[in-house]
Amino acid sequence: MQDNVYKIVEVTGSSTTGIEDAVRKAVAAAAKSLKHLRWFEVGETRGHIEDGAIAHWQVTVKIGFTLEQ
Amino acid sequence: MQDNVYKIVEVTGSSTTGIEDAVRKAVAAAAKSLKHLRWFEVGETRGHIEDGAIAHWQVTVKIGFTLEQ
Amino acid sequence: MQDNVYKIVEVTGSSTTGIEDAVRKAVAAAAKSLKHLRWFEVGETRGHIEDGAIAHWQVTVKIGFTLEQ
Amino acid sequence: MQDNVYKIVEVTGSSTTGIEDAVRKAVAAAAKSLKHLRWFEVGETRGHIEDGAIAHWQVTVKIGFTLEQ
Amino acid sequence: MQDNVYKIVEVTGSSTTGIEDAVRKAVAAAAKSLKHLRWFEVGETRGHIEDGAIAHWQVTVKIGFTLEQ
Amino acid sequence: MQDNVYKIVEVTGSSTTGIEDAVRKAVAAAAKSLKHLRWFEVGETRGHIEDGAIAHWQVTVKIGFTLEQ
Amino acid sequence: MQDNVYKIVEVTGSSTTGIEDAVRKAVAAAAKSLKHLRWFEVGETRGHIEDGAIAHWQVTVKIGFTLEQ
Amino acid sequence: MQDNVYKIVEVTGSSTTGIEDAVRKAVAAAAKSLKHLRWFEVGETRGHIEDGAIAHWQVTVKIGFTLEQ
Amino acid sequence: MQDNVYKIVEVTGSSTTGIEDAVRKAVAAAAKSLKHLRWFEVGETRGHIEDGAIAHWQVTVKIGFTLEQ
Amino acid sequence: MQDNVYKIVEVTGSSTTGIEDAVRKAVAAAAKSLKHLRWFEVGETRGHIEDGAIAHWQVTVKIGFTLEQ
Amino acid sequence: MQDNVYKIVEVTGSSTTGIEDAVRKAVAAAAKSLKHLRWFEVGETRGHIEDGAIAHWQVTVKIGFTLEQ
Amino acid sequence: MQDNVYKIVEVTGSSTTGIEDAVRKAVAAAAKSLKHLRWFEVGETRGHIEDGAIAHWQVTVKIGFTLEQ
Repeated sequence: MQDNVYKIVEVTGSSTTGIEDAVRKAVAAAAKSLKHLRWFEVGETRGHIEDGAIAHWQVTVKIGFTLEQ
Repeated sequence: MQDNVYKIVEVTGSSTTGIEDAVRKAVAAAAKSLKHLRWFEVGETRGHIEDGAIAHWQVTVKIGFTLEQ
Repeated sequence: MQDNVYKIVEVTGSSTTGIEDAVRKAVAAAAKSLKHLRWFEVGETRGHIEDGAIAHWQVTVKIGFTLEQ
Repeated sequence: MQDNVYKIVEVTGSSTTGIEDAVRKAVAAAAKSLKHLRWFEVGETRGHIEDGAIAHWQVTVKIGFTLEQ
Repeated sequence: MQDNVYKIVEVTGSSTTGIEDAVRKAVAAAAKSLKHLRWFEVGETRGHIEDGAIAHWQVTVKIGFTLEQ
Repeated sequence: MQDNVYKIVEVTGSSTTGIEDAVRKAVAAAAKSLKHLRWFEVGETRGHIEDGAIAHWQVTVKIGFTLEQ
Repeated sequence: MQDNVYKIVEVTGSSTTGIEDAVRKAVAAAAKSLKHLRWFEVGETRGHIEDGAIAHWQVTVKIGFTLEQ
Repeated sequence: MQDNVYKIVEVTGSSTTGIEDAVRKAVAAAAKSLKHLRWFEVGETRGHIEDGAIAHWQVTVKIGFTLEQ
Repeated sequence: MQDNVYKIVEVTGSSTTGIEDAVRKAVAAAAKSLKHLRWFEVGETRGHIEDGAIAHWQVTVKIGFTLEQ
Repeated sequence: MQDNVYKIVEVTGSSTTGIEDAVRKAVAAAAKSLKHLRWFEVGETRGHIEDGAIAHWQVTVKIGFTLEQ
Repeated sequence: MQDNVYKIVEVTGSSTTGIEDAVRKAVAAAAKSLKHLRWFEVGETRGHIEDGAIAHWQVTVKIGFTLEQ
Repeated sequence: MQDNVYKIVEVTGSSTTGIEDAVRKAVAAAAKSLKHLRWFEVGETRGHIEDGAIAHWQVTVKIGFTLEQ
């Protein structure tokens, strides 16, 4: 972790089941196009309500990955 | 979602099991007296400790609903 | 809860399973050396990613306990 | 403005034309059910994009009104 | 305090004498129309100046009360 | 809007006429290289002054778009 | 812009027409007594409501100017 | 309060007795050199401790006054 | 105050009479177990309501003390 | 700087020597893949400790660059 | 430091070498026109990039000085 | 770094030479009484001015260390 440089991307994951699942989906989506993901930081949690119940959770996540040098 | 106006209420839900359950209880309680709930935003998460373990989670949620026009 | 004074400690719990488990581990660790824990407040949620998936969740928690007077 | 008490409501106005119009719609909607509106404070500005252009602006406004005593 | 749900209202109290009196007036005004007030949280403190001296203190307070279930 | 994942980019638009025009330019510039733009959130508004008058408005906007899965 | 030092003043402009006009009035007022204004940054937007409609917009602006050395 | 412009100064008042006295001293000091003070907003409260007791309270206050036009 | 190092503790004081008394109780409690207290900074002010009136004020205070070297 | 649009990337630079070196490494890394870098803004400063001394500084930087139009 | 009142000015210092030099230049510039400077607080750090390297650091500093009474 | 729990202490380091030296002194002071220091996070930077020049830098640092289990 010495002299690395990390780039940070911001991704919003969405889930019908809850916060952690939404975070995992955000990370999984980032992992499809980016290599060397290292850490994440959870931001804002929002979501939609339908018929008086939570329909989706949406969690914004910052994800850091190592730039290849 | 075009030209609607939303009113926002702030509700703290409480749960012995965890964060998402507390959020769901906040939304369910709001749904008892308000119609057309649309979205929520999770705020502060706090709680009480008894005998060295978490007794309740308390999560404050902002909930937006459509004003009937 | 009348005229008590609370001291607050900040602890980061770590878990491979999720946010609430990390909070519970932070509280459990504080309970090993401190008595009369009363409340907690969840702060920053971060974590590490390995091979494109979340390896650990790290949640920082403020924990209040009664000072013995 | 001496010894009044104000209650504050939070409303999100929505407009296809811009920020000020969204704020005005939020105030107008509040004025339908509340009397003695006194001041407002603009919060978060968000919106939706369709076909690469802004479709709606959504502005959250806090509105203070005098409680009748 | 177990499985309750709290609703939060935001009220600005105003006083010619000081901060605590303004908070007390905000709570007293809320108590006229709401039952089961439980807690408060002090926000922004502002006020007006006349002839080089403070004429009124205005303190915004969030007040939580139990929803009757 | 169910199980989508959104990526968020941050863009500063610049305009000689005002805030909304700067936001629209930020969105239009993002739309040149990104598809499926869905929402925006207005951040910091700054600008330059020349000869005692505002020469440019610069508004930073977060823009969310659907990742193609 | 090399080795300059900027002093920052904070000014609230007021307008019956909208946000940008209030910002312009804040800058114009500062330009009456200060030279070498360089940039501005928009802060809090508030205002007054009369008869259920917005009477004035009040926007607080930080304005930077070059100190003459 | 229509089309006025306000300039804002930031002052820290200091008192051996408490918060409101420190705010009043900040306002009184500003009133010595500035006319037309209109409003204040209380910021950070700090202070010094000597021999285990509070020796001074220091409160930072923003004070708005009308620019003479 | 030259080359000292300060450790900071966070304490919540509680009072039936008001904010300053709660801060003083927090400092007094810290002074029982810590020497060389130097400064404090007032954080969040909360409290409990009973029968429509404030029963206790709870103020969180950061307190800095000199580490003995 | 007239009608340009800037895109902002967030990069964490890492250094064994200090804050400015970490910022410079973040900028240098961004300059390898992006042209027309214009400005930066320093965010969070963190780091690792080994054997009671700072091993690395990690500074997160937002970097703005001109989109080619 | 007993019953003094401090006025606070905000100054942005600029330097080609780094953060501390920019802070020192801000303080030195304030010292040219103000007496009795007592303390400073470092705010936002920004800067310009030219040819892929940092050209200037710009650091905003709040500076408190004693009002002569 | 798997299932560890970290405790966080807050320390203000002081230096006549600059920010990094103040951070290093804060870490060194913590290392005298605590083992297993792992990471730090830089907070507020303040300081004192004497005769128009910076006399001391004071930097508040959060320091995390592993609880021995």
